[in-house]
Amino acid sequence: MKRIAVLTSGGDAPGMNAAVRAVVRKGIYEGLEVFGVKYGFRGLVNGDIKELKLGDVGDYIQRGGTFLHSARYPEFASEEGQLKAIEQLEKFGIEALVVIGGDGSYHGAEALTKRGFNAIGLPGTIDNDISGTDFTIGFDTACNTALDAIDRIRDTASSHDRTFIIEVMGRNCGDIALYAGIAGGADVIVVPEEEFNIEKIVEQLNVRRARGKAHSIIVLAEGVMSGPAFAAELDKHGDFDSRASVLGHIQRGGNPTVADRVLASRLGGRAVELLLEGKGGLAVGIVANQIVENDITDVLKNKSQIDHRLFELSKELSI
Amino acid sequence: MKRIAVLTSGGDAPGMNAAVRAVVRKGIYEGLEVFGVKYGFRGLVNGDIKELKLGDVGDYIQRGGTFLHSARYPEFASEEGQLKAIEQLEKFGIEALVVIGGDGSYHGAEALTKRGFNAIGLPGTIDNDISGTDFTIGFDTACNTALDAIDRIRDTASSHDRTFIIEVMGRNCGDIALYAGIAGGADVIVVPEEEFNIEKIVEQLNVRRARGKAHSIIVLAEGVMSGPAFAAELDKHGDFDSRASVLGHIQRGGNPTVADRVLASRLGGRAVELLLEGKGGLAVGIVANQIVENDITDVLKNKSQIDHRLFELSKELSI
Amino acid sequence: MKRIAVLTSGGDAPGMNAAVRAVVRKGIYEGLEVFGVKYGFRGLVNGDIKELKLGDVGDYIQRGGTFLHSARYPEFASEEGQLKAIEQLEKFGIEALVVIGGDGSYHGAEALTKRGFNAIGLPGTIDNDISGTDFTIGFDTACNTALDAIDRIRDTASSHDRTFIIEVMGRNCGDIALYAGIAGGADVIVVPEEEFNIEKIVEQLNVRRARGKAHSIIVLAEGVMSGPAFAAELDKHGDFDSRASVLGHIQRGGNPTVADRVLASRLGGRAVELLLEGKGGLAVGIVANQIVENDITDVLKNKSQIDHRLFELSKELSI
Amino acid sequence: MKRIAVLTSGGDAPGMNAAVRAVVRKGIYEGLEVFGVKYGFRGLVNGDIKELKLGDVGDYIQRGGTFLHSARYPEFASEEGQLKAIEQLEKFGIEALVVIGGDGSYHGAEALTKRGFNAIGLPGTIDNDISGTDFTIGFDTACNTALDAIDRIRDTASSHDRTFIIEVMGRNCGDIALYAGIAGGADVIVVPEEEFNIEKIVEQLNVRRARGKAHSIIVLAEGVMSGPAFAAELDKHGDFDSRASVLGHIQRGGNPTVADRVLASRLGGRAVELLLEGKGGLAVGIVANQIVENDITDVLKNKSQIDHRLFELSKELSI
Repeated sequence: MKRIAVLTSGGDAPGMNAAVRAVVRKGIYEGLEVFGVKYGFRGLVNGDIKELKLGDVGDYIQRGGTFLHSARYPEFASEEGQLKAIEQLEKFGIEALVVIGGDGSYHGAEALTKRGFNAIGLPGTIDNDISGTDFTIGFDTACNTALDAIDRIRDTASSHDRTFIIEVMGRNCGDIALYAGIAGGADVIVVPEEEFNIEKIVEQLNVRRARGKAHSIIVLAEGVMSGPAFAAELDKHGDFDSRASVLGHIQRGGNPTVADRVLASRLGGRAVELLLEGKGGLAVGIVANQIVENDITDVLKNKSQIDHRLFELSKELSI
Repeated sequence: MKRIAVLTSGGDAPGMNAAVRAVVRKGIYEGLEVFGVKYGFRGLVNGDIKELKLGDVGDYIQRGGTFLHSARYPEFASEEGQLKAIEQLEKFGIEALVVIGGDGSYHGAEALTKRGFNAIGLPGTIDNDISGTDFTIGFDTACNTALDAIDRIRDTASSHDRTFIIEVMGRNCGDIALYAGIAGGADVIVVPEEEFNIEKIVEQLNVRRARGKAHSIIVLAEGVMSGPAFAAELDKHGDFDSRASVLGHIQRGGNPTVADRVLASRLGGRAVELLLEGKGGLAVGIVANQIVENDITDVLKNKSQIDHRLFELSKELSI
Repeated sequence: MKRIAVLTSGGDAPGMNAAVRAVVRKGIYEGLEVFGVKYGFRGLVNGDIKELKLGDVGDYIQRGGTFLHSARYPEFASEEGQLKAIEQLEKFGIEALVVIGGDGSYHGAEALTKRGFNAIGLPGTIDNDISGTDFTIGFDTACNTALDAIDRIRDTASSHDRTFIIEVMGRNCGDIALYAGIAGGADVIVVPEEEFNIEKIVEQLNVRRARGKAHSIIVLAEGVMSGPAFAAELDKHGDFDSRASVLGHIQRGGNPTVADRVLASRLGGRAVELLLEGKGGLAVGIVANQIVENDITDVLKNKSQIDHRLFELSKELSI
Repeated sequence: MKRIAVLTSGGDAPGMNAAVRAVVRKGIYEGLEVFGVKYGFRGLVNGDIKELKLGDVGDYIQRGGTFLHSARYPEFASEEGQLKAIEQLEKFGIEALVVIGGDGSYHGAEALTKRGFNAIGLPGTIDNDISGTDFTIGFDTACNTALDAIDRIRDTASSHDRTFIIEVMGRNCGDIALYAGIAGGADVIVVPEEEFNIEKIVEQLNVRRARGKAHSIIVLAEGVMSGPAFAAELDKHGDFDSRASVLGHIQRGGNPTVADRVLASRLGGRAVELLLEGKGGLAVGIVANQIVENDITDVLKNKSQIDHRLFELSKELSI
């Protein structure tokens, strides 16, 4: 093999640049030429492709977002798009591809491999909602960003004896809420994977108030309901005058943490090794602190699970 | 004079603790006993007052919020509340009061002074909307928090070639938007003090796009309209698919910056000196980098002004 | 069992407060009374012990250092000290102990258990130099602090085309250097566990210079040699005019990250469960993302290992 | 006038990029072509000059260091160097120059102006040691970086009841020590401009210890003596076992704060206006919150002063 390419797709996540850099540097270390595709699968179809030298990925490891840009491109589900993409790749003499992103990106990598073009997926999404990996690239940074916000809002909550609902990202996966919530000392954590009972929450908050703790922090994953909706619900069942804060897009950006940069570097390095071994149709991940690869079709079929024991612990500690 | 007291009132702001600490330490340095009132004017009326020793303000200078707590208390506008407050203060042998907060707090300080009880106001609010001072305690921290958010959102905006509206705090005063906007390299800044023309903004963004800059950041003060409303307005007049991010309560909290801690220390120290000189009915501020005092009634009458030249500069630099 | 106690010992680490909080809250959740010992083993011998209620650990999860204080106390190695400690614990009706710290703390916990008093160790040290756990409490925060410093110093290095040696903590263990170095995009990482050849490093830096990269960052664990000594060594073998920056104590403090707070919470919770099962002489850790317990004597005998594969990757990526 | 140029010189400071960006954008706004000179005066002499378009300064406002690079170049003091520089500038059709840096840079700007080539100086240095301006570009960021370190070290100091000497930058000017020290709640601040008495400091620390405050933080400007030397001095006169932490180069880097970015933008904008008015030999600064210009020769003659009243306040508050 002489030439590989790398692209980022779906929502941006901190550490994507570190992953691209690792693919480029490891590739060059192994004697390959590495190409970058701009704007994800759209750029692939359009041939928005150019070589990345060592200098092109300098000074990017510390930056959020993706310098390769990303784009939504549902058209890639079509046979036509996929064939056009392979045509473009072959035009550049590229023999294999690394795709960094979430579910949608994995579908693209799976499709290309099925058509005979080896592609490997790396989990790049803040949501931690990909199976076959304990953590996704960007998750640790997003949790720390959410935590910083929780720490700030606690200042106001405690100054004014107020109840705050902090809505964090996570449509199907409550991991940001769970990790940032435990770390933020949240009184209540509400995630899509676990049922909640608004009356029990009200009771719990009232017990704490009776004990003298006048302010409360509830961390809520967006997948359950919106923060303002939850606040309304809470105020209907109890006497709280609660406020909602929707963290929103700040969770996507920012300089990646050590954990995300190291994870991205390890996953990117491994992807190149697998391509060199002639493999495709795999998703690389970290499981039990080891870099592993799984069949990408299996990864797409399975659902990432919340750590139920950790959720239980969060309840025990917010007694 | 033997005893003075200090309270925080209105919305919390980073640096309030540093101001309370300065009042306590400077007071003790001058041989006074200093008392803290909890929950602002409500606590004053209820006699929620206790002495603060040096050790009681240790380890607070670096913390956001107010350890004295704050509360809304419109009842203080009544004669009854004010007389009750003075009664409580006299019960504790307290002869003068420092009030840290915004407009509402200043009204309380003014009323007490008019009834013969010397009170001095310090500007503690993130909004920078108090006249008679160039900067309020908390403003610099809030700007830096907003800037951090803008820097994060830019990662996503540039990764996806998107237009983002970032709504920051500021009902009547666009200073957070102006400072954080300039610092964040915003393409457009929209504040309540200056008119805007949505069609001109659309044109401006289109010119930049034509030049190759595909993403845009608009920083909007909440007093103009909400972020989602502005995004809708923009999308009606142009082809943007823009996103809104409402920063909300994170702007209030967090460890205060150097500038806010130093400002709070200087203002708190000066307030004690003025009380020792037997003065009341004043608001302390910083003007032209000098600590000054103004008649609190004048301060309440005047409106803080935006720096029009700085707003013009922001437009010139976002060419 | 009715009463347990917790202490922190050795150098402070971010997340120690979160671990103490978890022991207290989990203990109370399980119906126990939990006592805090101040100043580590010294306080244990002196009976500096008092009950911790839920409110006593409020507002501490986010703070660095240890509110129980810590102290060096080599005298605890003596029989006399250990017997006195058990006497004090029995006086308070305390039946078991959680010790949070490093190697020295583990020796204390081992000794108490051997004398019939159940004690469990939690790894609280930034150095990540404890066997039986993949990560210690405080390591992730220290890495991120070091990374922040590396990111800052890179600004100067690249502005002035300079070579910087950044000395990070780690006497026997190069993990901070390895993780922060990879994350910081270091050109060279030097750790005690892996040999280095100064001439090869010079050659490597010269190759990069020839390629146009005029500045270099070397991350060095203190256990190898001091930063200034390494800079002198480098300048003797090549033409660098290199500068050393010794990060020092800033690496110990600061608000803990999400990973450290969550790890501390999990380990603290598990320690209480083990004590309730009547167990002692164990060290709790995280291995392969699972909470595990090991015989504390084994943990003390074994040496934590550097991830050799990760070190190799760091070299491949800094091609 | 058609063409101007800009360079950065001396030690890098956060906000230099924001100043360059402001010169470029304001220049283009005014219809000029703006050129960037790399590596300061060395690059000027060598003709390392190229045009900067709007896109060339995009995405730099938030970054520390200087993308134009900087260099020491004492040779510029010679007539030969200066004439060569003017020759280079004329070759490019450049008619005026903005120089961003400290004292040395101002000497260069003064020399060029004296030879008939208009140059304007902007104060870009973290040290705040330039007269004619209340604040220099980079000072606020450096203070906040130092403060972050102080906050971290306090965690360890208070956990271990220890005395820490924190050495910050400032050879002739104690402003970083003064501002970061006040903000950090330092017990003692030692600056070159004010005498200190080691015995009085020992006494002061002992008084505080007797009061129950077992740890102490001393913030020391490097210009007085080194941190380790001060620690030795202190331990000779009292019973402290004190530790020194030398913050060093981390103070130079990092993303600039709001205040530094706004200041840089204002100064950069004003410099262009002055050049357009045909002026040179001036240093732009901020005094009493107004942008002002002073004769650069006067600025070089005068010494920036410490705010003596602020230093006194720091002593009163650390009672």
